[in-house]
Amino acid sequence: MSWIDAVLWNAEGLAPVVTQDVVTGRLLMQAWMNREALAATVAEGRAVYWSRSRSRLWRKGEESGHVQQVREIRLDCDGDALQLIVEQTGGIACHTGRESCFYRRLEQAQWLAVDPVARDPATMYRAPDSK
Amino acid sequence: MSWIDAVLWNAEGLAPVVTQDVVTGRLLMQAWMNREALAATVAEGRAVYWSRSRSRLWRKGEESGHVQQVREIRLDCDGDALQLIVEQTGGIACHTGRESCFYRRLEQAQWLAVDPVARDPATMYRAPDSK
Repeated sequence: MSWIDAVLWNAEGLAPVVTQDVVTGRLLMQAWMNREALAATVAEGRAVYWSRSRSRLWRKGEESGHVQQVREIRLDCDGDALQLIVEQTGGIACHTGRESCFYRRLEQAQWLAVDPVARDPATMYRAPDSK
Repeated sequence: MSWIDAVLWNAEGLAPVVTQDVVTGRLLMQAWMNREALAATVAEGRAVYWSRSRSRLWRKGEESGHVQQVREIRLDCDGDALQLIVEQTGGIACHTGRESCFYRRLEQAQWLAVDPVARDPATMYRAPDSK
């Protein structure tokens, strides 16, 4: 598929992805995709990343329910970075229960958590057999 | 400086940076910083990236004049990605003369340029001796 080949995948076959909320405009998170993740994202209409720590596809929201429905996929001028514009289920992208993973702001030489926790993360994740 | 050490720099000493416009909310670009670039950004109040292609600090706007004045610097939950919120001089971040580098949208298996060119790039760059 030539549109996948148009992305300049890095030496590990990955490209950085930046995800923005279509409603609030907030930058929600930065993650990674490989070819398979991008193809799955397009096929399924929801954000599918490549988890570098788990070395597998990561369907965002698969445990928390905080799925990202994809409205737009964009590519930057030099072809090595992707942007997703998404509808964020629950309004929470971060595993800490905050809207955005970028909740720490540099102030006077310290990274201060400046955004509220919208949901207790202890209530966000359940064991696979605890439905 | 401990706040610089709080960033999880990758094996090359870099971290991805995502830059957003404080006025329009547009995601302007994705680039990279090393420790020196982040320190310079804080010290100078303008975006200074690490150019991987030129292997040197890159003061955004040094040739085009399209400087990015930094309003906020944020760090994500796992500490390996940075966000800048900036005031974009000229309203143009991309070397193609567009507001954002993410001007191509995936539509029917093609990356289509969907954003207008705000300024002819031929007028954006001048030779160092042509002031």
